[in-house]
Amino acid sequence: MSTQNGPRKAEAIFAATLELLAEHGYDRLAIEAVAARSGVNKTTLYRWWPSKDALLAAALRDSGLFALDVPDTGSLRGDLLAVAAHILRLLTSERTSPAVIATLAAGPHRPELGEVARSFFADRMAREQPIFERAAARGELRDGVDPVVLMDLLAGAIWFRILLRGGEADPKFLEEAVDTVLGGAA
Amino acid sequence: MSTQNGPRKAEAIFAATLELLAEHGYDRLAIEAVAARSGVNKTTLYRWWPSKDALLAAALRDSGLFALDVPDTGSLRGDLLAVAAHILRLLTSERTSPAVIATLAAGPHRPELGEVARSFFADRMAREQPIFERAAARGELRDGVDPVVLMDLLAGAIWFRILLRGGEADPKFLEEAVDTVLGGAA
Repeated sequence: MSTQNGPRKAEAIFAATLELLAEHGYDRLAIEAVAARSGVNKTTLYRWWPSKDALLAAALRDSGLFALDVPDTGSLRGDLLAVAAHILRLLTSERTSPAVIATLAAGPHRPELGEVARSFFADRMAREQPIFERAAARGELRDGVDPVVLMDLLAGAIWFRILLRGGEADPKFLEEAVDTVLGGAA
Repeated sequence: MSTQNGPRKAEAIFAATLELLAEHGYDRLAIEAVAARSGVNKTTLYRWWPSKDALLAAALRDSGLFALDVPDTGSLRGDLLAVAAHILRLLTSERTSPAVIATLAAGPHRPELGEVARSFFADRMAREQPIFERAAARGELRDGVDPVVLMDLLAGAIWFRILLRGGEADPKFLEEAVDTVLGGAA
């Protein structure tokens, strides 16, 4: 939550940004409309976020809607299952998936959105780091395994299954994905 | 290659379809333009593919540009490395990535494209099946591991790294992803 680093109505502004993104798509997302819906002056918005992309990046990263409560279940498997369930919710819940999909859909034509995605995933990875530090301390992570590669595999599997393969990702799938990535397929 | 199941100029038609898709995007891809560029009568196109989506699905699945020579290197690790390198090429090569990205970008707004993607990935999975049958026969695949989940993890990691995290996917990354999914992170 970045309310310490933004205007007091940051959460309302982020919510309006994500709603308008979902309703109209990235190309027609306008700062004026965000101002109107959140009841904040346009100049206030520009003071904090100099561009639409800066505002969108902040909304995706800091909105409570997307907030990741970093799990601490006592085991790497439990923590990864909780993170996997969180990713699945973001990709399928009515309140978040339209914004995720609108960002993804605009991305390939809008190189500047690549920066928004990079910033979002870099922030996520930084927040997830304690999961892997605790796992390493408990001896649950094999030496030489890169947590970023592990998250590419796990998060990638869920994105791939839902958005590309058009499959279901029920709790059983999440368990299979986590257990395969932890225990190995060989 | 579906030249047995399509007109003799199928490969030229598929190439024109993928080029025009990359140039104009999905929404402005027109069968008339495919006909003009491939030198095939429009009615011939409609006889084989009753809709734009049917033509696009066939082009993605059967064009030589996307063809997967199913590897048979003698080991599951070798086969997966070859498949991973193939996926990386599709996502990064100048000749294929624009078509992949245009399909992906249109997908979320065009539910009918979901069917195109599902058909593409179902066809891929069917072609990759022998890799896992040979691996199982060699005792290289742990009992109970679902090859579809394994491919969600591996293909997902490459898509995620390239298109979302905005990272590099060099041969070292492919090796790490394959070795983590085979040997396990725990």
